[in-house]
Amino acid sequence: MTERILVINPNSNHGVTRAMSEALESFRFAEGPVIDCIDIAAGPPGIESQADADAVAPLVAQAVAADPADAYVVACFSDPGLYAAREATSSPVLGIAQCGMHAAMALGASFGIISILQRSIPRHLRYVASLHLSPRLAGDRAIELTVAELAQGPVVLERMAQVGRTLIDQDGADAIVMGCAGMAAYRATLEHRLGVPVIDPTQAAVVDAMRLVLTARARAGEARRSA
Amino acid sequence: MTERILVINPNSNHGVTRAMSEALESFRFAEGPVIDCIDIAAGPPGIESQADADAVAPLVAQAVAADPADAYVVACFSDPGLYAAREATSSPVLGIAQCGMHAAMALGASFGIISILQRSIPRHLRYVASLHLSPRLAGDRAIELTVAELAQGPVVLERMAQVGRTLIDQDGADAIVMGCAGMAAYRATLEHRLGVPVIDPTQAAVVDAMRLVLTARARAGEARRSA
Amino acid sequence: MTERILVINPNSNHGVTRAMSEALESFRFAEGPVIDCIDIAAGPPGIESQADADAVAPLVAQAVAADPADAYVVACFSDPGLYAAREATSSPVLGIAQCGMHAAMALGASFGIISILQRSIPRHLRYVASLHLSPRLAGDRAIELTVAELAQGPVVLERMAQVGRTLIDQDGADAIVMGCAGMAAYRATLEHRLGVPVIDPTQAAVVDAMRLVLTARARAGEARRSA
Amino acid sequence: MTERILVINPNSNHGVTRAMSEALESFRFAEGPVIDCIDIAAGPPGIESQADADAVAPLVAQAVAADPADAYVVACFSDPGLYAAREATSSPVLGIAQCGMHAAMALGASFGIISILQRSIPRHLRYVASLHLSPRLAGDRAIELTVAELAQGPVVLERMAQVGRTLIDQDGADAIVMGCAGMAAYRATLEHRLGVPVIDPTQAAVVDAMRLVLTARARAGEARRSA
Amino acid sequence: MTERILVINPNSNHGVTRAMSEALESFRFAEGPVIDCIDIAAGPPGIESQADADAVAPLVAQAVAADPADAYVVACFSDPGLYAAREATSSPVLGIAQCGMHAAMALGASFGIISILQRSIPRHLRYVASLHLSPRLAGDRAIELTVAELAQGPVVLERMAQVGRTLIDQDGADAIVMGCAGMAAYRATLEHRLGVPVIDPTQAAVVDAMRLVLTARARAGEARRSA
Amino acid sequence: MTERILVINPNSNHGVTRAMSEALESFRFAEGPVIDCIDIAAGPPGIESQADADAVAPLVAQAVAADPADAYVVACFSDPGLYAAREATSSPVLGIAQCGMHAAMALGASFGIISILQRSIPRHLRYVASLHLSPRLAGDRAIELTVAELAQGPVVLERMAQVGRTLIDQDGADAIVMGCAGMAAYRATLEHRLGVPVIDPTQAAVVDAMRLVLTARARAGEARRSA
Repeated sequence: MTERILVINPNSNHGVTRAMSEALESFRFAEGPVIDCIDIAAGPPGIESQADADAVAPLVAQAVAADPADAYVVACFSDPGLYAAREATSSPVLGIAQCGMHAAMALGASFGIISILQRSIPRHLRYVASLHLSPRLAGDRAIELTVAELAQGPVVLERMAQVGRTLIDQDGADAIVMGCAGMAAYRATLEHRLGVPVIDPTQAAVVDAMRLVLTARARAGEARRSA
Repeated sequence: MTERILVINPNSNHGVTRAMSEALESFRFAEGPVIDCIDIAAGPPGIESQADADAVAPLVAQAVAADPADAYVVACFSDPGLYAAREATSSPVLGIAQCGMHAAMALGASFGIISILQRSIPRHLRYVASLHLSPRLAGDRAIELTVAELAQGPVVLERMAQVGRTLIDQDGADAIVMGCAGMAAYRATLEHRLGVPVIDPTQAAVVDAMRLVLTARARAGEARRSA
Repeated sequence: MTERILVINPNSNHGVTRAMSEALESFRFAEGPVIDCIDIAAGPPGIESQADADAVAPLVAQAVAADPADAYVVACFSDPGLYAAREATSSPVLGIAQCGMHAAMALGASFGIISILQRSIPRHLRYVASLHLSPRLAGDRAIELTVAELAQGPVVLERMAQVGRTLIDQDGADAIVMGCAGMAAYRATLEHRLGVPVIDPTQAAVVDAMRLVLTARARAGEARRSA
Repeated sequence: MTERILVINPNSNHGVTRAMSEALESFRFAEGPVIDCIDIAAGPPGIESQADADAVAPLVAQAVAADPADAYVVACFSDPGLYAAREATSSPVLGIAQCGMHAAMALGASFGIISILQRSIPRHLRYVASLHLSPRLAGDRAIELTVAELAQGPVVLERMAQVGRTLIDQDGADAIVMGCAGMAAYRATLEHRLGVPVIDPTQAAVVDAMRLVLTARARAGEARRSA
Repeated sequence: MTERILVINPNSNHGVTRAMSEALESFRFAEGPVIDCIDIAAGPPGIESQADADAVAPLVAQAVAADPADAYVVACFSDPGLYAAREATSSPVLGIAQCGMHAAMALGASFGIISILQRSIPRHLRYVASLHLSPRLAGDRAIELTVAELAQGPVVLERMAQVGRTLIDQDGADAIVMGCAGMAAYRATLEHRLGVPVIDPTQAAVVDAMRLVLTARARAGEARRSA
Repeated sequence: MTERILVINPNSNHGVTRAMSEALESFRFAEGPVIDCIDIAAGPPGIESQADADAVAPLVAQAVAADPADAYVVACFSDPGLYAAREATSSPVLGIAQCGMHAAMALGASFGIISILQRSIPRHLRYVASLHLSPRLAGDRAIELTVAELAQGPVVLERMAQVGRTLIDQDGADAIVMGCAGMAAYRATLEHRLGVPVIDPTQAAVVDAMRLVLTARARAGEARRSA
C-alpha cells in the first residue's frame, strides 16, 4: 500500500508547482508516500492581495474534496482555505505557513519572514496573531521586486539575502522562513550566506504530512502491541 | 553518502530506547538517513524531577559532543540540555517537547499534554512559557501511575485515554501530545479512541531532523540552480 | 448632501436583512445618513461553516466594489471579506464582529459571545486572537438550536438567556455580544433579563459608520477653522 | 421623550468644553438625544500630571451623581473617575480613551496616540495595558508644545502632523487617536495630511453613547416583538 | 544617621495602622531605618470601592509631600496615589500590591489573592493587568465578610483558609497574597494551614524599602571603591 | 535564636563571593539573620555559557542539600538549579534574577538588563519569558568586555554607563538590573550617573530572604494573636 500526499498550489502558475515538486524530490522514497503537486486552474497567477487569498480559499477546499489523498498540504503562505478544507475531508490538512513557522521555531527563539510583497505583510501579521505566535516573530519584510525582477534568479537571491540580513541583524531573527511557496531553489544558498537556518515552508509541511501518513501506516502493529 | 540522525534518550533505560527506536521504524528508508537511538549510561532510570532533568542536561551536551551526527534529537519531554548541546555542535539539535507541541499545533488550535507524573507539570509549564506557547496549551494532566502500573500496557492505555478525554472535553484540547518519550506504542490506539490527533513527540522531532538532513543533501544541486 | 451607509448581509436570507434594517430604525434621522441593508443573492442561506464564510468573502468584496457608498458594514459575525473589501474601496469598511466586541469592551472588562452554532466557535476564537482580543473574551457559547427551533422566538430568547447567564456567572462576562446578525429583536429583553449590557453587533458597527460619515461631513468646516 | 448625553470635561477650561461641543454638532439631530458638555469648575485648567488625573477623578464621579443623564462621557484621555462614576449611576458611563482606541482599532491593526505632553505617556501606557490593548498600540508620542505654542493653531497642526507621520512610518500605526479632548478642529485636516484615519476620541465616545440611548429608546418595541 | 521609612495607611482606621506597625516589628533594628506608620485622618474608614480608592489617591500624594522620608510605602492593596506620590518626592515610593505580588512570584509560578470584598476584585484585576502580571495570577477570591464578622479573628481566619484552599486547589495558586493591609496577624497561621507561602504585602513593601535606604546608605563607600 | 541565610555563588571565583558578601554588609544587624556567602569549588570560574549554567545547576542543589539554612539565595543571574534546589529543602530558595527583576519592577514600568556577555542574552530572554515577564523587559544589552578589561574598574563602570544609557534612552527602561552577581560595587555610582534606579540582584534576593526568615521568627506570636 502506498499513501498519497497532495500538495495544492492554489495559484494557476505551473512553474511554481514544478519548482515545488522538484524541491520535494529528496522526500520521495521507494517505500515512502507518493507526493503529488497540483495547481488550481481557476486560481489567480499569484496570491498578491487579500482578494486573491479570499478567491482561492473555496477553490482549495473544493480541490481537497475532489481529489482523495491521505494528507493534504495547502501550499501558499497565507494558508488560504485551510480550515474549510478540514471540513471537507477526514484526512489531515496542513498549511505551509504554520508548518514553516514551526520549523523555524524548532531551531531558534524568534523567526523572520521574507515576503515577496509589502502589501502581504498585514495579512501575514493577522494570521500569525490568530495563531498566538506574534511573540516569536522577529519581523516580516518584503523583497518588493517587480515581476520582471522576480524572473531573474540572482536578483531575487541578492534581495532575499539583504532582507534576511536585516531581519537577523536589526530585528533579531534566529531563523528565517521564506514567506512564499516555490522559492526552495534559493534556500540552501541563502542559508549559507545568512548563517542561520532558512526554511522552505512547503518542505516543512510535506515532511509533517509524511509523519502523519507513515505513523498511520504503523497503526495496525501499534494497536496489536498495546492491546 | 548517508546522513545520520542521533536520537538521545537521556535516561539509562534501554527498554525506553528500544521502544523509541521501534517507533521510528517507519521513517527508515533505504535511501534515507540512518536513525540511531542511544541512551546515557550515567543518566537516571527516568526523568522524574527537576533534579533528574538538571542532572542529565550536561550529559546530553557531552553525548552530542562525543558522537558526530548530522542532526540530533534530545528525546525527553523536558528537552534537557538542548541549548548547551547547540553550543557543542554545528549540526542542528532538536528537542522532542518543542517538536511535539508544534506537530500538535499544526493540527489544532490548542493542545493538551498527557504527563506521567503530576510533579513534572510545573516544569513543563515553565518550559511552555519560555517558548511563548502558553496560549496554545489547553492543559497538562498526569496519569500518575506507580512504576508497577506503568509496566501494564492496558492500565497505561486506559489511564491515558481517561486523561486525554478530560483534556479534550474539559480543557478544550484539539490535539494531544504524549508528554514523555517511549510511549509511541500507545499512540495509534489512543488516537483512535480519543478521535483527535495524538502526537508522539519523538516521531515529530525525528521527522523534523529528516527534513534538515535531506534538504542539506539537496544543497549542492540547489546552489547550482540558483547561481 | 446625504451620505449613504451600506450594510451588507452576506447571506441570501431576506428575513435576516429585514430584521437588521428594522433594528437600525432608531439611527435613521431626517438629516442623517441613509442606511441601506442588502443581502447577497449568491450567498448561502446562513453562514454556518468555514466553507460558508470563505464562500461569501469574495462576494462581499464584489458587493462593495459594485455599490458606491460612503461607508460599508459587513454584517456577519465572522466579518467575512472585510479586508478584501477594504482593497476594493476608498470608503471605510467596518465589520460587525469587531465593532460589537469593542462596544462590549467599552462597558466592561470582559465580554461573552452568544453563538448560534458550536461549530462556529473555533472560527470566532481564531478571529478574536487575530485581533489580540483574547484576553478580553470571557467565553463563547452556542445556543445550538435546530432550524425549526430558531424560528420560534420564545425558544430562542429562553436559550439565549440561559447561555448568557452561564457566560456571566461561570465565565465572568461583564457584557454580552450577540454573535450573529439579525437577532437585535431579542437584545433589549435579553439585556433586561441578564442585567448586563447586551450588544447587537450590527447596531454597533452602523453607529461607528455614522460617526465616520458625519465627521467627514464636518470636514470642510474643520479644515477652515484649523487653517 | 428626549434622552440626554452628558459629556464631562474634567478640567475647568471653558474653551476646551466649547471646542468639544462644537465638534459634536454633527451628532445633534432634531429627533436625537440632547448632547450637553460641561466642565468642572473645581478641576485644574488641564490634566497634565498623574496628580491632576487623580484630583479630578472624584470630581467626575460627583458630577455624574449630581446631574442625571441617560449616558455619560468622561472627556479626558486618561478616563479619570470612569470606574467610580459607574458606581454612582445606573446609566452607562463611557471613557473617551477607551472609545477612541476602539474606533481606531475598527479601522486598522494598530493605532498610534498623539499626546500633548511626554509626561502623560507612562500614564497612558499603564491604562492601555490595564485594558490588555498594548499589542494593538503602535506607539504614543508627544507634541510637547509650550502653552504659548498650543494657542497657535498652525503650530499645533504642524507638530501633530510630524508626530503622526512618525507614528505611521516608524511605529507602523494604521490609524491615529488624538490623545486629548478638545482637539477635534484639527482632525479632518490631519487625516487628510496623514492619509490614515484620525480619531477624535470624544466624538467616538459620544456616538457610542448615542447608540446606547437610542437602542434603549427602541426597547419597548423590541420587547413586544420578541415576546 | 538614621533613615526613615514612612508607611501610609490611606484610610483613617487607627486599628489597621497599629496592626501594620506591629507586623513590622521584626524589621526594626537598632542600626536600621526607622519605620513609621501613619494613617490619613481625612481618608474613609476603609477602601471598599473605586470611589474610596479615588478619594484617597490625592491624599496619599499630599501625605508624601508633607512628610519627608527616605522611602514611602502606600499601604492599601489598590496602591492608590502611588504614581502621583512619585511626582511629589524624589524618594522612592512603593506600593504594597506590587511588592506583595512580587514576593509571591519569587516563591511560585502563580499566586492567588485573598480579597476582603467581591467588589474590589475588578479593581484588582485592572491593576494586575496594568502591570502585565495577569499571566501569573491564578485567581482573586473574596472572603466577603460583614463588618461584624471581620471583627472576629477566628471567623476571619477560617474564611481566609477556605478561600486560600480554593485558590490553591481549584485555581492552581502556588503562593497567596493577602489582598489587604493590616491582616498580618493571620499570615503565619494561614501559611501553616495552607502549606504554601502566604505574603503580607505591607511586610513585602517595607522590606523592599529597607533595601533601598540601606543601599543608599552604603553609597559613599561604593562610590569610593568603584572610583 | 539566629537564622541563617546562605548565598550560593555557583562559580568558583572567591573574588566574586567576597564582593557579594561586602555588598551585603548593610543588611547584617546584631539582631538580624546571619548572611553567609559561599562559592562552589567544583563550579566553573564564571557562568559564561549554557553549558556552564547547566553544569552548575546540580551543584547548586547539592550545596543546598548539604548545608542547612533558613533560606537560600542562588547568586547567578541565570538562577541555575533554583527549581531543583527547592526539591532538596523545605526552606525557601530564591533566585537573584527573579528578585532583581521584581525589585526593578517595583520602581518602574519596564526594566533593562546590563549583561556581561552577548551570548548570555538568549538564555536570559528564555528565562524572562518562562516567568511571563517579557512585557516588562525594555531590553538586555551586554558590555561585552574581555577578561582583562573586566578587571579594570573604571572601564567596567564606563561601559556599564554607556549600555545603561542606551537601555534608558533607546529601549525605554525605567530601571536597570545588573545582570550578574558580584558587581554591586558599581551600583551606586551607576545609579547616580544614569538617574534611574539600579538594582544589584543579590541585594534584592537577600532582602527578600530576610523578610522570609524574620516573619517566620515572628510566627509564634502571630499564631497566638490570631488564635
